[in-house]
Parts: sequence; structure tokens; C-alpha cells
Amino acid sequence: MPKSELYMALVHFPVVNKNGETIASAVTNLDLHDMARSCRTYGVRRLFVITPLEDQKRLVQRIAGHWTSGVGATHNPDRKEALSLIHLCHDMAEAVQCVAEEGGQRPLVVATTARLHAEAMSHETLRDILAGGQQSCLLVFGTAWGLADSLMTSVDRVLEPVLGNTVYNHLSVRSAAAILLDRLTGKPLKGSGI
Amino acid sequence: MPKSELYMALVHFPVVNKNGETIASAVTNLDLHDMARSCRTYGVRRLFVITPLEDQKRLVQRIAGHWTSGVGATHNPDRKEALSLIHLCHDMAEAVQCVAEEGGQRPLVVATTARLHAEAMSHETLRDILAGGQQSCLLVFGTAWGLADSLMTSVDRVLEPVLGNTVYNHLSVRSAAAILLDRLTGKPLKGSGI
Repeated sequence: MPKSELYMALVHFPVVNKNGETIASAVTNLDLHDMARSCRTYGVRRLFVITPLEDQKRLVQRIAGHWTSGVGATHNPDRKEALSLIHLCHDMAEAVQCVAEEGGQRPLVVATTARLHAEAMSHETLRDILAGGQQSCLLVFGTAWGLADSLMTSVDRVLEPVLGNTVYNHLSVRSAAAILLDRLTGKPLKGSGI
Repeated sequence: MPKSELYMALVHFPVVNKNGETIASAVTNLDLHDMARSCRTYGVRRLFVITPLEDQKRLVQRIAGHWTSGVGATHNPDRKEALSLIHLCHDMAEAVQCVAEEGGQRPLVVATTARLHAEAMSHETLRDILAGGQQSCLLVFGTAWGLADSLMTSVDRVLEPVLGNTVYNHLSVRSAAAILLDRLTGKPLKGSGI
């Protein structure tokens, strides 16, 4: 049986801006660091960084390269371990193909969103699927104001948003990714029904 | 009875550097944004940003001011709502005093750390304390390589670290704070014993 693993993708195109228009966002240095460190902590197999823009591809390569083979690798080996998970892709299709080639089967592609979605998958359900170990999963995060509809409609499932205990629903993508990794794969809390 | 609330502190002094020496760290713009947004999402009452350095105090005021009363407030009201939680303090004593004045009693001061600590409080225990509503709590995070011993020994309790499901233990403070807020105050996952 193919090995099942969790993968993550951080998408810079197609995403939407404040006005709902489809754009390609700029790569943020700290997105790569924070998300790679969270991925490494929770055993994610790869962090796909997706952008079709050549200058942004070079930026990703420069950031990751500094910490994986540059002076940063010697200065901070822990960071090297995390940033080694970064895998640059032109688009989502390339990321899905990469997972399929590594694992022997197409992954379940699950999009995240801050918005409520009629047929959203619960955190509990995805946690059970991951624990079941039957299929690899690619968890997709959007930058800027989130994934564009053209991408949302192309995935297998949409995950319910991370909601705190207020009506405020504007976590950073870095924080949302960290919380979701903990909810989906972290150590359960004992007692208190949680 | 005084109202019980959760407060958070982000400490820039006294913290340690890579070599274990006590330093004052520089304020990071994205720490303020990410942690304020997480705090607002999970109903934290205030985010104390602690630094004794005058130039760093001015930086915090400039960042928070831009988004709470500058052009950023008009451009992005959601960000204003989050960054309004920031309260600049010279040291921990000032933050503790502020909570005591607001709530009518001294808070339970709980330090976070990435290190294992013999008498650490579990996430479950602190979650129960917060749910009990008997006392306000000030949850303290260190920047750089973490809180200095001089601060660790002055708090009421030390919280167990956030551990993923690998031996890698190097989350960013932004990610660790987000995960802890969710573990301590977030919606419980149903089923699966979690």
C-alpha cells in the first residue's frame, strides 16, 4: 500500500485581493519560515510554495537556499531542517503531480478558507482521515485575501474555517496553518471533553 | 466578583540569545500583527508588548498607531480592531499592575517555554482554570531564544511546551501563541477522544 502523508501548499496564484479580484500575491519571507517550522514540527512531508512569477520563484529559491545550503545552514541547522521541506511549484497541478509520484496515488486535495462553506469538511473528519492512513492529503492555503474561486472549485474538499471564540475571523495564514496542524495531527487534550 | 480575563504578554527583555546570554531583542512587526490578530480571534483582553528600549517603544507606537489611528485604520478596520489590543509596557511588573488595576486582582502569571520543565502546568489544567473564571491570567511569551531565567523564576507557573508529533521543537513564537490560544480557549474537537 502507498504510504500516506500530509502535504501542505501555500498558494500565491490564483488568490484574491481585498476587492475580490484574482491576483498573484508577493512571497512573504516569514510565511516560508513560520509555515516550514510548523510543518516540520507536525511531520508534514513537504511545503509546496506555489507561484507562477519568475521573480517570485527566484525569491523563494534565494530564501530557501540561504538556509538550506548557504551560510544560514551552518548558522542555524534547525532552520535548515524546516526550510528543506519547501518545494517550489509553478501551479497546483505540479504540486498534486509531485505528491502522486512520491506516494503512488493522487492525494486528497483539501482547500482551507476563512469563509463558511455549505459542504465544508469538519476538522474532526479530516483528522480521522489522516489518522486512517489510507490516502495522502494536500492541505491548501491561500495568501492575500484567500484562494480564488477557480481554485476552490477544483479541489476535492473544502475544510471548515478555524473559528476562535469571537466573531473576529482574520487570523494570519501563518497562525491558521499552525492551529490547523495542531487540530488535525496534534496531541489530543485530555479531559474536558476535548 | 472581579471579571476574569485572559491577557497575553510578548517580552523583548529579559530574553536569551542563541548562546543563553540575556539580551533585549528587537521588536518584529509581524509578531505584533499576528499575535494581535490571534488575540482578537480568541477574545484575549490585551496584548502587552514589553520592551525597556526607548527606540523600540517608539517603533511599537508607530506600528500600532499606523493601524489604530493612522491611514491603516481607514484602509483596514479589521486590523485596527486587532492592533488596538496592544498595550506597550516597560517591564513585566507594569503589565501585571495594569491587569490588577483593570480586574481588581493580581492575575495568575503563566510563562510559556519550548523547554521541558519539571513542574510545568498542563494545557488541560490551564484550560480548566480559564473556564472556571475565578482569576484573570497573564500568558507570557518570550522572543529570541525565549524568556530569561530571571523572568521564569518570577512567574506563578510555567506552562508545558507545545509539542507536535515529531522531535522538532522550534515553532515561531507567533505559531506557538496561536496554537496555545486554540488549545486553551478554542472550540473542542468532537469525537476521537479529542
